[in-house]
Amino acid sequence: MTRLGVEELQAILSAAFPGNDVPRVETVDDDAVLMSIAISDRHGRPGGTLSGPTMMTLADTAAWLAIMSQIGPVLLAVTTSLHIDFLRKPQLTDLMARTRLLKLGRKLAVVEVELFSRGSTEVVAMAQVTYSLPTSAS
Amino acid sequence: MTRLGVEELQAILSAAFPGNDVPRVETVDDDAVLMSIAISDRHGRPGGTLSGPTMMTLADTAAWLAIMSQIGPVLLAVTTSLHIDFLRKPQLTDLMARTRLLKLGRKLAVVEVELFSRGSTEVVAMAQVTYSLPTSAS
Amino acid sequence: MTRLGVEELQAILSAAFPGNDVPRVETVDDDAVLMSIAISDRHGRPGGTLSGPTMMTLADTAAWLAIMSQIGPVLLAVTTSLHIDFLRKPQLTDLMARTRLLKLGRKLAVVEVELFSRGSTEVVAMAQVTYSLPTSAS
Amino acid sequence: MTRLGVEELQAILSAAFPGNDVPRVETVDDDAVLMSIAISDRHGRPGGTLSGPTMMTLADTAAWLAIMSQIGPVLLAVTTSLHIDFLRKPQLTDLMARTRLLKLGRKLAVVEVELFSRGSTEVVAMAQVTYSLPTSAS
Repeated sequence: MTRLGVEELQAILSAAFPGNDVPRVETVDDDAVLMSIAISDRHGRPGGTLSGPTMMTLADTAAWLAIMSQIGPVLLAVTTSLHIDFLRKPQLTDLMARTRLLKLGRKLAVVEVELFSRGSTEVVAMAQVTYSLPTSAS
Repeated sequence: MTRLGVEELQAILSAAFPGNDVPRVETVDDDAVLMSIAISDRHGRPGGTLSGPTMMTLADTAAWLAIMSQIGPVLLAVTTSLHIDFLRKPQLTDLMARTRLLKLGRKLAVVEVELFSRGSTEVVAMAQVTYSLPTSAS
Repeated sequence: MTRLGVEELQAILSAAFPGNDVPRVETVDDDAVLMSIAISDRHGRPGGTLSGPTMMTLADTAAWLAIMSQIGPVLLAVTTSLHIDFLRKPQLTDLMARTRLLKLGRKLAVVEVELFSRGSTEVVAMAQVTYSLPTSAS
Repeated sequence: MTRLGVEELQAILSAAFPGNDVPRVETVDDDAVLMSIAISDRHGRPGGTLSGPTMMTLADTAAWLAIMSQIGPVLLAVTTSLHIDFLRKPQLTDLMARTRLLKLGRKLAVVEVELFSRGSTEVVAMAQVTYSLPTSAS
C-alpha cells in the first residue's frame, strides 16, 4: 500500500525544486514510481546528448520519491551513496525513470533506478541509490 | 607534464556550460586539478544543505578536466560510471573538488574526486568517476 | 541467440576454478544466466551469515559467464569495476545469481547480477559489474 | 588514538578466517591500517594475474579492521556496499591494502582502500566500502 500518491509527491517536488525544471511524477504504485523530465537545450552536452548530471539528478530524485511513496514525507532523508552506469546515449526526448525498491530498512533504503527515453525500452543508465532515513521514520 | 592549464580548461568549461554556474578552475598541476563552485540559494535542499546533484555535477566535471589536463581537449569523452559516497553535510560556502588520476589508459580513465568546503580539510564526499576515451585519444 | 550453453560454460568454469567450490551453471538463455553455489561452513561469518566475499565472487563470475554466453569464450575479459549493495542476510542454503545484460558494447559490457537464496524471491544483494572486452571480441 | 593494535586485530582475523589464507596485519596507526596477503597459485586467473575476488576480499577485510582499530571489536558490523575499480594488473607478489577512514558515524562507516603490490607505489585497485555499525557501537 502506498502512503503518498502522484499529487502528494508532485507537490513535495514542486516545493523542493522551485523553478522551471521540476520533474513530473507520472505514476505511483506499490512496486514503482515512474517519473519524467522534459529535455531542453540546457541539458545538452558536446556531441548532442543529454548530460550525465541531468540523469544523476533524476535518479537521485526518483529514489527519494520511491521511499516517500512507501513511508510518507521524509524530507530529511539524505543520499548516502549513488552508483550509476551510463550505458548508451539517450535520445533528446523526455527522460524517464522507473524505480525498484530493493530494501526499506529502519536505517537505510536502497533503490534501483532505470533510466530510459520516452517511447523506448532500452535502458540508457542504471543507478543504485542509498538513502539514510531519519530515526523517527518507521 | 600537463597539456592544458588553468586558462585553457576554464575556456572549455565556459563553452560547455554556458550560463551563470560555470565552475572555476583554481589550479592545475601534474597531480591534480583543483576546482570550485560558488554556492547560491538555488543549490540548497531541505535542511539547509547543499544538494547531492550539485556535488555529483562538480565531481563529474572535475574528472573530465583532470583527464583533459593530461591528454588535451577530448570533448567527446563520456562518463561511463560514477560512484559517490556522501559523507557529511558541506558548509554553505564554496564547494571545492580536488582530483587524483588513478588510471589513464587507452580506453578508460579513472579519476578519484575529493569534495570539501573551502577552508576546511574535512572530506564531504568522495567520488570515483570512469570516462571512456574516444579511440583517437593517445 | 546464445553462443555458449550450460555445458560449455560449466567446462570453462571448472577449468578456471580448479577445486571444490566451482559454482554450478543452472540455466542459460537469451536474457539471463542462472548460477548457484552450494554453501558450506567455510563461507560463514560471525553472526551465522554468508560472507560478503562469497557473494562478490559469485556476482563477478556470473557476469563473466553472461558475457561469454553471448559472445563466446573471452577468457581474457577483465573486470574493470564492481558495485554491490548487500541488502539482507542470505539464508544458509544455496546462493543463486541471475544476470541481466545491460550493455554489450565493443569495449565494455555491463551486467546486473541479482543474488538470492534458493527457494526465495527476496534479493539479498544486487551488483553491477563492468568488464572490459579484449579488442578481438566482436 | 587507536583502540586495537596489530596483535589484537590479527587475533580477530585469525579467528574469523580459520585456514591458511589469513591476511597479515602489518601496521596500525591513527590514520591507516596496512595489511597484506601472500599470493599463491590458487589466487590466479587466466592471463597470469591475480583474481578480482582476492582483491575484493582483502579490501572488505581491511575496511573492517580499520573500523575496529578505532572503535574496538564490532564483530557484527556488516558491509552494506562495496565499490571497486580495478586499475591495472597486480604483480604476482604480496598484495597490500592501505585504508583511509573517510567517515565514522554512529550508523555508518565509510573506508577507502588502496590496493598495491608490495614494493610498488602504483595503485592496482581502489575500493570504497561502507559498513553498517551495530547500534551499541559508540
